[in-house]
Amino acid sequence: MPPIVIRTQPDDPTHATPSPTHSRQHSSEQLLPMKRICIVGAGNWGSAAAIIIAENVKKYDYYDDTVNMWVYEEIIDGKKLSEIINEQHINVKYLPDHNLPENIVAVPDLRDAAAGCNVFIFVIPHQFLIRTCKTLKGQIPDDSIAISLIKGIDFNEDGVILMSDIIKRELSIDVSVLSGANIANEIAAGKFCESTIGYNNSDNAIVFFELFNNRNFRISLIKDVEAVQVFGALKNVIALGAGFCDALNMGNNTKAALIRIGLLEMHRFASKYFGPIHDAAMVESCGLADLITTCMGGRNRRVSEAFARAGGKRSWEELEDEMLKGQKLQGTSTVLEVMKILKRDNCLNEFPFIKLIYQIAYEGAAIPTIVDFPDEHAGDALDAPDD
Amino acid sequence: MPPIVIRTQPDDPTHATPSPTHSRQHSSEQLLPMKRICIVGAGNWGSAAAIIIAENVKKYDYYDDTVNMWVYEEIIDGKKLSEIINEQHINVKYLPDHNLPENIVAVPDLRDAAAGCNVFIFVIPHQFLIRTCKTLKGQIPDDSIAISLIKGIDFNEDGVILMSDIIKRELSIDVSVLSGANIANEIAAGKFCESTIGYNNSDNAIVFFELFNNRNFRISLIKDVEAVQVFGALKNVIALGAGFCDALNMGNNTKAALIRIGLLEMHRFASKYFGPIHDAAMVESCGLADLITTCMGGRNRRVSEAFARAGGKRSWEELEDEMLKGQKLQGTSTVLEVMKILKRDNCLNEFPFIKLIYQIAYEGAAIPTIVDFPDEHAGDALDAPDD
Repeated sequence: MPPIVIRTQPDDPTHATPSPTHSRQHSSEQLLPMKRICIVGAGNWGSAAAIIIAENVKKYDYYDDTVNMWVYEEIIDGKKLSEIINEQHINVKYLPDHNLPENIVAVPDLRDAAAGCNVFIFVIPHQFLIRTCKTLKGQIPDDSIAISLIKGIDFNEDGVILMSDIIKRELSIDVSVLSGANIANEIAAGKFCESTIGYNNSDNAIVFFELFNNRNFRISLIKDVEAVQVFGALKNVIALGAGFCDALNMGNNTKAALIRIGLLEMHRFASKYFGPIHDAAMVESCGLADLITTCMGGRNRRVSEAFARAGGKRSWEELEDEMLKGQKLQGTSTVLEVMKILKRDNCLNEFPFIKLIYQIAYEGAAIPTIVDFPDEHAGDALDAPDD
Repeated sequence: MPPIVIRTQPDDPTHATPSPTHSRQHSSEQLLPMKRICIVGAGNWGSAAAIIIAENVKKYDYYDDTVNMWVYEEIIDGKKLSEIINEQHINVKYLPDHNLPENIVAVPDLRDAAAGCNVFIFVIPHQFLIRTCKTLKGQIPDDSIAISLIKGIDFNEDGVILMSDIIKRELSIDVSVLSGANIANEIAAGKFCESTIGYNNSDNAIVFFELFNNRNFRISLIKDVEAVQVFGALKNVIALGAGFCDALNMGNNTKAALIRIGLLEMHRFASKYFGPIHDAAMVESCGLADLITTCMGGRNRRVSEAFARAGGKRSWEELEDEMLKGQKLQGTSTVLEVMKILKRDNCLNEFPFIKLIYQIAYEGAAIPTIVDFPDEHAGDALDAPDD
């Protein structure tokens, strides 16, 4: 790849956090290799991300203007989706209402899409991740970097499996993650929203900040890949509790209390299984903001409210089929897996809210028990740390 | 006052936070003076607080069962309010739908109400606070303690004046504060909600925890009197921004982003003027939970949405008169005072959201500019600290 000249600032030891406002175009000159982007996935979210990235690469000399986007080929009205994208610059299947910049090139073969690239944006359904990584293995430069936009976490007999760990294990590269209070269609429409990038390596964090941040999609950075992903999965469990609360017409104050308690339990879970997590991670977009929006309008909240209003007469599966038209509830499967871990580790009592949600969702407990927190947790489990 | 025997645990040096679950009824015996409560105020919130306190004092030997409540005397249908309360055990004017426990004694003279008491609950409109304190001065034991449930903060030419500081200055006693996502009528009805007590002295914090915490009104403790009060006032400013967002139908993700950014600016303001504030204070009930509920359903949000929808044709005063029926908007007066301070200290750029709110509210800026955050704040002012 052609090297280009950019300027970097010397490290500032007073800043532990990389600051994207320290532009890499000032101070001492040095040679950096050109960066070329491959977006691995072309669904709704992948296409929205492509729009942002394809505009941002034009701002910097050291990104190749051409952005490859791997498209899992489909035939739409007799024509290949990749060809439609390259000719009409619209993803007619997954993001039909927005034009794609012309520097996005759809490529139906994954290895072709990856060829020459060293920055990978993973944005595919999680069940395809391992297979996709295996296809890329040995095909990409050793100093490649990646970011995962994939929703959800997996579980096995050992506990939680993070998408970032799968990519790292399969490809031996540094992996950042992005998650926050935003949905693809609103981002594509330029509505103001935020997201959080969790990183390990601050140089790579700055790359992804440059690729994603823009005036209406504001990125903040935290040095915590695990919290971002755990929060993104557990919010759907808390949203079940919010739905139960809504079915009881308990009012805004009770709901705000449950959102708060849920956030603390999300943080406690992440801290327990992924080392200490800074309190400040909770007030990131991937924490409280995504939790607020999921507890106000998301599908998990909506189906959960319907479950509660049906008074035990309708199953989760039945409501899911009827209300989500092929989409899946994430909160119900996640709470089942989380409970297995908490029971195994004998620490259910540290998570009274998740336990109450589970008992209503799967053990027939009455809906009003959603606020039956045990007395021994008063001023203890419900307490945020204050030192 | 009669001394009573209670048992206390030795201090546990591993706990910086006083844990109310360490009951004071175990371990080594010691004599503690009897505590006797005076609730200074008998409005809606004072009466709801009286219900909780009057039930809680019965659980502990070292509280006098009788709880005095100072009632500013009024004549209701020809009869004194204090007499109605003492005979019918209902505050017919301010909390008509709930019975008061019989161990609440209404006392119309403040000095009579305070006589023999050493624990004071201040719950009066803030404009009466100085006068009330001056009446009590010299009339109460030196080792008395107080808690303020008073909403809002004041301002003078030097900046912010906290209610706790007024009480402390006038009476020379330790003052805690209580604030959170709750309203008096819901508390009185036993709806589940939470609140935060901010304290300086951990022994006193435990007293107030015992007096307020119950199964449906959960208290957590933070060693920060200032943050609790500043958050309680600034939330009303942020709610104006939420109302503008609602008028634009911007959707849950944008609103969640603005709530999050608002919380960070509340924290930044408290930190700037009252020393460093722990990040964890933001996730207290007095922080994010109260902010959520204020931005979802409060009067400031509601009038602000109407202001925005009127497109500059109606003034705050006109809408306040029409929509609030004698109640006052707090967000508008607070943002005016806050802006004076930030301008004086030349740090407006650290508070881009408060500045945008002010510009729309008072300088005729267009409503959609509510998300016009300056570029230089990307990944900086909008960033939460992560270390």
